[in-house]
Amino acid sequence: MMQNKVIKLNYPNGKRITKNTSKVLQQKSKDYSKINYGKRGMNLEEEIDKSNQFLRSENIAIIHKKPTPIQIVEVDYPKRQKAVIKEAYFRKPSTTDYNGVYNGYYIDFEAKETKNKTSFPLNNIHDHQVSHMQQVLKQKGICFLLIKFTYHDSVFLLPFREFMVYWDRYKSGGKKSITIKEIEHDGYLIPYQYRPRLDYIKIVDQLITMESEALK
Amino acid sequence: MMQNKVIKLNYPNGKRITKNTSKVLQQKSKDYSKINYGKRGMNLEEEIDKSNQFLRSENIAIIHKKPTPIQIVEVDYPKRQKAVIKEAYFRKPSTTDYNGVYNGYYIDFEAKETKNKTSFPLNNIHDHQVSHMQQVLKQKGICFLLIKFTYHDSVFLLPFREFMVYWDRYKSGGKKSITIKEIEHDGYLIPYQYRPRLDYIKIVDQLITMESEALK
Repeated sequence: MMQNKVIKLNYPNGKRITKNTSKVLQQKSKDYSKINYGKRGMNLEEEIDKSNQFLRSENIAIIHKKPTPIQIVEVDYPKRQKAVIKEAYFRKPSTTDYNGVYNGYYIDFEAKETKNKTSFPLNNIHDHQVSHMQQVLKQKGICFLLIKFTYHDSVFLLPFREFMVYWDRYKSGGKKSITIKEIEHDGYLIPYQYRPRLDYIKIVDQLITMESEALK
Repeated sequence: MMQNKVIKLNYPNGKRITKNTSKVLQQKSKDYSKINYGKRGMNLEEEIDKSNQFLRSENIAIIHKKPTPIQIVEVDYPKRQKAVIKEAYFRKPSTTDYNGVYNGYYIDFEAKETKNKTSFPLNNIHDHQVSHMQQVLKQKGICFLLIKFTYHDSVFLLPFREFMVYWDRYKSGGKKSITIKEIEHDGYLIPYQYRPRLDYIKIVDQLITMESEALK
Protein backbone atom coordinates (compact mmCIF):
# COMPACT_ATOMS: atom_id res chain seq x y z
CA MET A 1 0.00 0.00 0.00
CA MET A 2 1.28 3.44 -0.93
CA GLN A 3 1.71 5.90 1.89
CA ASN A 4 2.22 9.63 1.73
CA LYS A 5 5.63 10.85 2.78
CA VAL A 6 5.51 12.14 6.32
CA ILE A 7 8.30 14.00 8.05
CA LYS A 8 8.13 14.12 11.83
CA LEU A 9 9.52 17.33 13.26
CA ASN A 10 9.91 18.92 16.60
CA TYR A 11 10.78 22.57 16.31
CA PRO A 12 10.89 24.27 19.69
CA ASN A 13 10.00 27.60 18.13
CA GLY A 14 7.65 26.21 15.50
CA LYS A 15 9.03 28.58 12.90
CA ARG A 16 10.37 26.30 10.21
CA ILE A 17 8.73 24.47 7.41
CA THR A 18 9.96 21.14 6.16
CA LYS A 19 10.50 20.12 2.61
CA ASN A 20 9.52 16.99 0.74
CA THR A 21 12.43 14.61 1.29
CA SER A 22 12.76 13.74 -2.36
CA LYS A 23 12.97 17.43 -3.26
CA VAL A 24 15.62 18.02 -0.64
CA LEU A 25 17.69 15.16 -2.01
CA GLN A 26 17.28 16.42 -5.56
CA GLN A 27 18.41 19.87 -4.53
CA LYS A 28 21.35 18.49 -2.62
CA SER A 29 22.70 16.52 -5.53
CA LYS A 30 22.09 19.39 -7.95
CA ASP A 31 23.77 22.02 -5.82
CA TYR A 32 26.49 19.82 -4.45
CA SER A 33 29.24 21.60 -6.38
CA LYS A 34 28.05 24.97 -5.12
CA ILE A 35 28.30 24.24 -1.42
CA ASN A 36 30.92 26.34 0.28
CA TYR A 37 31.79 24.20 3.28
CA GLY A 38 33.85 26.87 5.00
CA LYS A 39 30.93 29.25 5.24
CA ARG A 40 28.02 26.92 5.91
CA GLY A 41 26.04 27.90 8.95
CA MET A 42 22.86 29.78 9.68
CA ASN A 43 20.36 30.65 7.02
CA LEU A 44 19.14 34.23 6.61
CA GLU A 45 16.09 33.75 8.84
CA GLU A 46 18.21 32.44 11.70
CA GLU A 47 20.71 35.27 11.25
CA ILE A 48 17.94 37.88 11.39
CA ASP A 49 16.28 36.20 14.38
CA LYS A 50 19.59 36.21 16.29
CA SER A 51 20.20 39.84 15.33
CA ASN A 52 16.69 40.85 16.41
CA GLN A 53 17.10 39.04 19.73
CA PHE A 54 20.25 41.06 20.35
CA LEU A 55 18.64 44.35 19.28
CA ARG A 56 15.75 43.65 21.69
CA SER A 57 17.94 42.61 24.60
CA GLU A 58 19.96 45.84 24.23
CA ASN A 59 16.83 47.97 23.82
CA ILE A 60 18.06 49.14 20.42
CA ALA A 61 14.99 48.14 18.42
CA ILE A 62 11.90 45.93 18.93
CA ILE A 63 11.50 43.91 15.77
CA HIS A 64 9.86 40.47 15.50
CA LYS A 65 9.19 37.96 12.79
CA LYS A 66 5.46 37.44 12.31
CA PRO A 67 4.18 33.89 12.83
CA THR A 68 3.60 31.83 9.67
CA PRO A 69 -0.06 32.22 8.66
CA ILE A 70 -1.94 28.93 8.94
CA GLN A 71 -5.48 28.02 7.96
CA ILE A 72 -6.82 25.70 10.62
CA VAL A 73 -9.42 23.15 9.51
CA GLU A 74 -9.64 20.63 12.34
CA VAL A 75 -8.81 20.84 16.03
CA ASP A 76 -8.96 17.99 18.51
CA TYR A 77 -9.55 18.55 22.23
CA PRO A 78 -8.40 15.48 24.11
CA LYS A 79 -9.56 15.40 27.73
CA ARG A 80 -7.10 16.95 30.20
CA GLN A 81 -4.63 17.70 27.38
CA LYS A 82 -4.00 20.72 25.27
CA ALA A 83 -5.73 21.28 21.95
CA VAL A 84 -4.14 19.52 18.96
CA ILE A 85 -4.44 20.91 15.45
CA LYS A 86 -5.11 17.85 13.25
CA GLU A 87 -5.54 19.50 9.87
CA ALA A 88 -4.23 22.85 8.71
CA TYR A 89 -2.64 24.44 5.65
CA PHE A 90 0.02 27.05 5.01
CA ARG A 91 -1.34 30.33 3.70
CA LYS A 92 0.40 32.98 1.62
CA PRO A 93 1.42 35.88 3.84
CA SER A 94 -0.44 39.13 3.05
CA THR A 95 2.29 41.31 4.51
CA THR A 96 6.05 41.16 4.99
CA ASP A 97 7.71 38.83 7.49
CA TYR A 98 9.26 41.37 9.87
CA ASN A 99 8.12 44.58 11.48
CA GLY A 100 8.62 46.65 14.58
CA VAL A 101 9.78 49.93 16.02
CA TYR A 102 13.16 51.66 16.21
CA ASN A 103 13.44 54.98 18.04
CA GLY A 104 9.92 56.01 17.04
CA TYR A 105 10.28 54.83 13.44
CA TYR A 106 8.14 52.05 12.01
CA ILE A 107 10.35 49.36 10.41
CA ASP A 108 8.99 46.84 7.90
CA PHE A 109 10.95 44.41 5.74
CA GLU A 110 10.95 41.18 3.81
CA ALA A 111 13.93 38.79 3.84
CA LYS A 112 14.81 36.42 1.00
CA GLU A 113 17.78 34.31 0.12
CA THR A 114 18.77 32.95 -3.28
CA LYS A 115 21.26 30.31 -4.43
CA ASN A 116 21.60 32.21 -7.69
CA LYS A 117 25.13 33.60 -8.19
CA THR A 118 24.43 36.63 -10.35
CA SER A 119 20.86 37.84 -9.76
CA PHE A 120 17.85 37.83 -7.44
CA PRO A 121 14.74 36.31 -9.10
CA LEU A 122 11.70 38.56 -8.57
CA ASN A 123 9.21 35.68 -8.51
CA ASN A 124 10.41 35.25 -4.92
CA ILE A 125 8.20 38.21 -3.97
CA HIS A 126 4.38 38.21 -4.07
CA ASP A 127 2.28 41.03 -5.52
CA HIS A 128 0.41 41.54 -2.25
CA GLN A 129 3.69 41.91 -0.37
CA VAL A 130 4.68 44.68 -2.78
CA SER A 131 1.26 46.35 -2.30
CA HIS A 132 1.75 46.14 1.45
CA MET A 133 5.18 47.80 1.23
CA GLN A 134 3.76 50.55 -1.01
CA GLN A 135 1.07 51.23 1.61
CA VAL A 136 3.72 51.32 4.36
CA LEU A 137 5.80 53.82 2.41
CA LYS A 138 2.74 56.10 2.05
CA GLN A 139 2.37 55.97 5.84
CA LYS A 140 6.01 57.08 6.21
CA GLY A 141 7.26 53.73 7.41
CA ILE A 142 10.83 52.58 6.72
CA CYS A 143 10.61 49.74 4.27
CA PHE A 144 13.25 47.53 2.63
CA LEU A 145 14.31 44.05 1.59
CA LEU A 146 17.14 41.99 3.02
CA ILE A 147 18.53 39.83 0.21
CA LYS A 148 21.10 37.11 0.80
CA PHE A 149 23.18 35.56 -1.95
CA THR A 150 24.03 32.28 -0.24
CA TYR A 151 26.74 31.41 -2.78
CA HIS A 152 28.63 34.61 -1.95
CA ASP A 153 27.48 34.66 1.68
CA SER A 154 26.54 38.32 1.17
CA VAL A 155 23.51 40.10 2.59
CA PHE A 156 22.25 43.38 1.13
CA LEU A 157 19.69 45.88 2.32
CA LEU A 158 17.76 47.17 -0.68
CA PRO A 159 15.47 50.14 0.14
CA PHE A 160 11.93 49.54 -1.10
CA ARG A 161 12.02 52.72 -3.24
CA GLU A 162 14.97 51.28 -5.21
CA PHE A 163 13.38 47.84 -5.36
CA MET A 164 10.25 49.34 -6.98
CA VAL A 165 12.25 50.48 -10.04
CA TYR A 166 13.17 46.85 -10.77
CA TRP A 167 9.73 45.56 -9.86
CA ASP A 168 8.14 48.01 -12.34
CA ARG A 169 10.66 46.96 -15.00
CA TYR A 170 9.67 43.31 -14.38
CA LYS A 171 5.92 44.03 -14.42
CA SER A 172 6.20 46.00 -17.65
CA GLY A 173 7.70 42.97 -19.38
CA GLY A 174 11.39 43.49 -18.61
CA LYS A 175 13.98 41.44 -16.72
CA LYS A 176 12.55 38.92 -14.25
CA SER A 177 15.37 39.53 -11.78
CA ILE A 178 17.66 42.15 -10.26
CA THR A 179 21.33 41.58 -11.00
CA ILE A 180 23.77 41.48 -8.11
CA LYS A 181 25.54 44.48 -9.69
CA GLU A 182 22.30 46.48 -9.54
CA ILE A 183 21.80 45.46 -5.92
CA GLU A 184 25.40 46.40 -5.10
CA HIS A 185 24.80 49.78 -6.71
CA ASP A 186 21.39 50.62 -5.20
CA GLY A 187 21.60 48.69 -1.96
CA TYR A 188 23.92 48.39 1.02
CA LEU A 189 26.11 45.43 1.88
CA ILE A 190 25.61 44.43 5.52
CA PRO A 191 28.93 43.05 6.75
CA TYR A 192 28.76 40.09 9.14
CA GLN A 193 29.92 40.92 12.64
CA TYR A 194 29.79 39.44 16.11
CA ARG A 195 26.67 41.03 17.67
CA PRO A 196 24.32 41.72 16.12
CA ARG A 197 25.39 39.38 13.36
CA LEU A 198 23.58 41.57 10.81
CA ASP A 199 23.58 45.21 11.91
CA TYR A 200 20.95 46.39 9.47
CA ILE A 201 19.94 49.14 11.93
CA LYS A 202 23.18 50.95 11.06
CA ILE A 203 21.94 51.19 7.46
CA VAL A 204 18.47 52.23 8.67
CA ASP A 205 20.19 55.13 10.46
CA GLN A 206 21.76 56.18 7.15
CA LEU A 207 18.38 56.00 5.41
CA ILE A 208 16.79 58.16 8.13
CA THR A 209 19.59 60.76 7.86
CA MET A 210 19.29 60.82 4.07
CA GLU A 211 15.50 61.26 4.25
CA SER A 212 15.74 64.11 6.74
CA GLU A 213 18.51 65.78 4.69
CA ALA A 214 16.29 65.54 1.61
CA LEU A 215 13.47 67.32 3.48
CA LYS A 216 15.66 70.28 4.47
CA MET B 1 -14.79 2.91 22.21
CA MET B 2 -14.21 6.43 23.49
CA GLN B 3 -13.27 9.03 20.95
CA ASN B 4 -11.86 12.49 21.49
CA LYS B 5 -14.14 15.35 20.65
CA VAL B 6 -13.32 16.75 17.25
CA ILE B 7 -14.74 19.89 15.78
CA LYS B 8 -14.47 20.28 12.03
CA LEU B 9 -14.01 23.86 10.93
CA ASN B 10 -13.49 25.72 7.75
CA TYR B 11 -12.45 29.28 8.37
CA PRO B 12 -11.66 31.14 5.17
CA ASN B 13 -9.25 33.41 7.00
CA GLY B 14 -7.95 30.80 9.44
CA LYS B 15 -8.02 33.30 12.27
CA ARG B 16 -10.32 31.76 14.79
CA ILE B 17 -9.86 29.08 17.38
CA THR B 18 -12.63 26.72 18.38
CA LYS B 19 -13.66 25.76 21.83
CA ASN B 20 -14.44 22.41 23.38
CA THR B 21 -18.12 21.83 22.68
CA SER B 22 -18.93 20.93 26.25
CA LYS B 23 -17.26 24.13 27.46
CA VAL B 24 -19.23 26.19 24.98
CA LEU B 25 -22.46 24.61 26.18
CA GLN B 26 -21.54 25.19 29.81
CA GLN B 27 -20.77 28.82 29.11
CA LYS B 28 -23.97 29.28 27.20
CA SER B 29 -26.14 27.98 29.97
CA LYS B 30 -24.18 29.87 32.64
CA ASP B 31 -24.27 33.18 30.81
CA TYR B 32 -27.72 32.79 29.38
CA SER B 33 -29.23 35.49 31.56
CA LYS B 34 -26.51 37.95 30.54
CA ILE B 35 -27.03 37.76 26.79
CA ASN B 36 -28.29 41.01 25.37
CA TYR B 37 -30.07 39.85 22.24
CA GLY B 38 -30.57 43.32 20.83
CA LYS B 39 -26.86 44.01 20.64
CA ARG B 40 -25.45 40.62 19.65
CA GLY B 41 -23.23 40.81 16.62
CA MET B 42 -19.52 40.89 15.91
CA ASN B 43 -16.97 40.17 18.55
CA LEU B 44 -14.13 42.59 19.23
CA GLU B 45 -11.68 40.84 16.88
CA GLU B 46 -14.12 41.03 13.98
CA GLU B 47 -14.87 44.67 14.74
CA ILE B 48 -11.16 45.55 14.75
CA ASP B 49 -10.50 43.54 11.58
CA LYS B 50 -13.31 45.37 9.76
CA SER B 51 -12.04 48.71 11.05
CA ASN B 52 -8.47 47.93 9.98
CA GLN B 53 -9.67 46.87 6.51
CA PHE B 54 -11.38 50.23 6.16
CA LEU B 55 -8.35 52.16 7.47
CA ARG B 56 -6.13 50.33 4.95
CA SER B 57 -8.50 50.80 2.00
CA GLU B 58 -8.65 54.55 2.71
CA ASN B 59 -4.86 54.80 3.23
CA ILE B 60 -5.44 56.10 6.74
CA ALA B 61 -3.33 53.53 8.58
CA ILE B 62 -1.74 50.14 7.79
CA ILE B 63 -2.48 47.91 10.76
CA HIS B 64 -2.79 44.10 10.69
CA LYS B 65 -3.52 41.36 13.16
CA LYS B 66 -0.57 39.00 13.50
CA PRO B 67 -1.22 35.34 12.65
CA THR B 68 -1.80 32.99 15.59
CA PRO B 69 1.53 31.43 16.55
CA ILE B 70 1.53 27.67 15.93
CA GLN B 71 4.12 25.04 16.75
CA ILE B 72 4.20 22.60 13.87
CA VAL B 73 5.15 19.00 14.66
CA GLU B 74 4.16 16.97 11.62
CA VAL B 75 3.62 17.91 7.99
CA ASP B 76 2.40 15.57 5.27
CA TYR B 77 3.29 16.11 1.59
CA PRO B 78 0.81 14.20 -0.53
CA LYS B 79 1.86 13.90 -4.17
CA ARG B 80 0.57 16.69 -6.41
CA GLN B 81 -1.29 18.28 -3.49
CA LYS B 82 -0.39 21.03 -1.10
CA ALA B 83 1.31 20.35 2.23
CA VAL B 84 -1.02 19.34 5.08
CA ILE B 85 -0.14 20.08 8.68
CA LYS B 86 -1.14 16.91 10.59
CA GLU B 87 -0.02 17.82 14.09
CA ALA B 88 0.47 21.27 15.57
CA TYR B 89 -0.17 23.15 18.80
CA PHE B 90 -1.20 26.67 19.73
CA ARG B 91 1.59 28.71 21.29
CA LYS B 92 1.35 31.69 23.62
CA PRO B 93 1.96 34.90 21.70
CA SER B 94 5.16 36.69 22.72
CA THR B 95 3.92 40.06 21.54
CA THR B 96 0.61 41.84 21.13
CA ASP B 97 -1.93 40.91 18.47
CA TYR B 98 -1.95 44.07 16.38
CA ASN B 99 0.68 46.41 15.02
CA GLY B 100 1.34 48.72 12.12
CA VAL B 101 2.02 52.26 11.01
CA TYR B 102 -0.02 55.45 11.05
CA ASN B 103 1.43 58.61 9.52
CA GLY B 104 4.97 57.63 10.52
CA TYR B 105 3.98 56.49 14.02
CA TYR B 106 4.41 52.89 15.15
CA ILE B 107 1.12 51.56 16.55
CA ASP B 108 0.98 48.48 18.81
CA PHE B 109 -1.97 47.18 20.78
CA GLU B 110 -3.63 44.23 22.42
CA ALA B 111 -7.41 43.66 22.26
CA LYS B 112 -9.42 41.80 24.89
CA GLU B 113 -13.06 41.40 25.67
CA THR B 114 -14.68 40.42 28.95
CA LYS B 115 -18.16 39.28 29.91
CA ASN B 116 -17.58 40.79 33.33
CA LYS B 117 -19.96 43.69 34.05
CA THR B 118 -17.90 45.76 36.44
CA SER B 119 -14.19 45.07 35.89
CA PHE B 120 -11.54 43.78 33.50
CA PRO B 121 -9.63 40.77 34.94
CA LEU B 122 -5.87 41.23 34.55
CA ASN B 123 -5.15 37.50 34.17
CA ASN B 124 -6.34 38.07 30.57
CA ILE B 125 -2.93 39.59 29.84
CA HIS B 126 0.38 37.68 29.85
CA ASP B 127 3.60 38.91 31.48
CA HIS B 128 5.54 38.72 28.23
CA GLN B 129 2.91 40.85 26.47
CA VAL B 130 3.39 43.51 29.14
CA SER B 131 7.20 43.28 28.73
CA HIS B 132 6.75 43.69 24.99
CA MET B 133 4.60 46.80 25.44
CA GLN B 134 7.15 48.27 27.86
CA GLN B 135 9.88 47.75 25.24
CA VAL B 136 7.70 49.38 22.59
CA LEU B 137 7.10 52.40 24.81
CA LYS B 138 10.88 52.81 25.29
CA GLN B 139 11.23 52.85 21.49
CA LYS B 140 8.63 55.67 21.31
CA GLY B 141 5.90 53.49 19.86
CA ILE B 142 2.23 54.25 20.54
CA CYS B 143 0.95 51.48 22.72
CA PHE B 144 -2.47 50.74 24.22
CA LEU B 145 -5.16 48.17 24.97
CA LEU B 146 -8.62 47.95 23.43
CA ILE B 147 -10.95 46.53 26.08
CA LYS B 148 -14.52 45.52 25.32
CA PHE B 149 -17.17 44.98 27.97
CA THR B 150 -19.49 42.74 26.00
CA TYR B 151 -22.32 43.12 28.52
CA HIS B 152 -22.34 46.89 28.03
CA ASP B 153 -21.24 46.67 24.39
CA SER B 154 -18.63 49.32 25.20
CA VAL B 155 -15.07 49.46 23.86
CA PHE B 156 -12.38 51.52 25.58
CA LEU B 157 -8.89 52.51 24.54
CA LEU B 158 -6.63 52.38 27.60
CA PRO B 159 -3.15 53.86 26.99
CA PHE B 160 -0.41 51.47 28.08
CA ARG B 161 1.05 54.06 30.50
CA GLU B 162 -2.26 54.14 32.41
CA PHE B 163 -2.61 50.36 32.23
CA MET B 164 0.82 49.94 33.89
CA VAL B 165 -0.41 51.65 37.08
CA TYR B 166 -3.04 48.92 37.51
CA TRP B 167 -0.69 46.15 36.40
CA ASP B 168 1.85 47.26 39.03
CA ARG B 169 -0.92 47.38 41.65
CA TYR B 170 -1.88 43.78 40.68
CA LYS B 171 1.73 42.53 40.68
CA SER B 172 2.41 44.07 44.09
CA GLY B 173 -0.45 42.05 45.58
CA GLY B 174 -3.36 44.42 44.96
CA LYS B 175 -6.59 44.13 42.97
CA LYS B 176 -6.55 41.46 40.23
CA SER B 177 -8.63 43.61 37.91
CA ILE B 178 -9.27 47.14 36.70
CA THR B 179 -12.76 48.42 37.46
CA ILE B 180 -14.86 49.81 34.64
CA LYS B 181 -14.92 53.14 36.53
CA GLU B 182 -11.11 53.27 36.47
CA ILE B 183 -11.10 52.46 32.77
CA GLU B 184 -13.74 55.15 32.12
CA HIS B 185 -11.56 57.62 34.02
CA ASP B 186 -8.15 56.77 32.50
CA GLY B 187 -9.23 55.50 29.08
CA TYR B 188 -11.33 56.68 26.17
CA LEU B 189 -14.69 55.29 25.10
CA ILE B 190 -14.67 54.52 21.37
CA PRO B 191 -18.21 55.08 20.10
CA TYR B 192 -19.47 52.65 17.45
CA GLN B 193 -20.00 54.25 14.08
CA TYR B 194 -20.54 53.23 10.47
CA ARG B 195 -17.01 53.17 9.00
CA PRO B 196 -14.65 52.45 10.54
CA ARG B 197 -16.80 50.73 13.11
CA LEU B 198 -14.21 51.51 15.81
CA ASP B 199 -12.38 54.72 15.02
CA TYR B 200 -9.55 54.21 17.49
CA ILE B 201 -7.25 56.29 15.25
CA LYS B 202 -9.19 59.39 16.36
CA ILE B 203 -8.07 58.66 19.94
CA VAL B 204 -4.51 57.93 18.74
CA ASP B 205 -4.52 61.46 17.26
CA GLN B 206 -5.45 62.85 20.69
CA LEU B 207 -2.63 60.85 22.33
CA ILE B 208 -0.12 62.17 19.77
CA THR B 209 -1.25 65.77 20.32
CA MET B 210 -1.03 65.34 24.11
CA GLU B 211 2.46 63.82 23.87
CA SER B 212 3.74 66.63 21.66
CA GLU B 213 2.11 69.27 23.92
CA ALA B 214 3.84 67.70 26.91
CA LEU B 215 7.22 67.98 25.16
CA LYS B 216 6.83 71.72 24.50
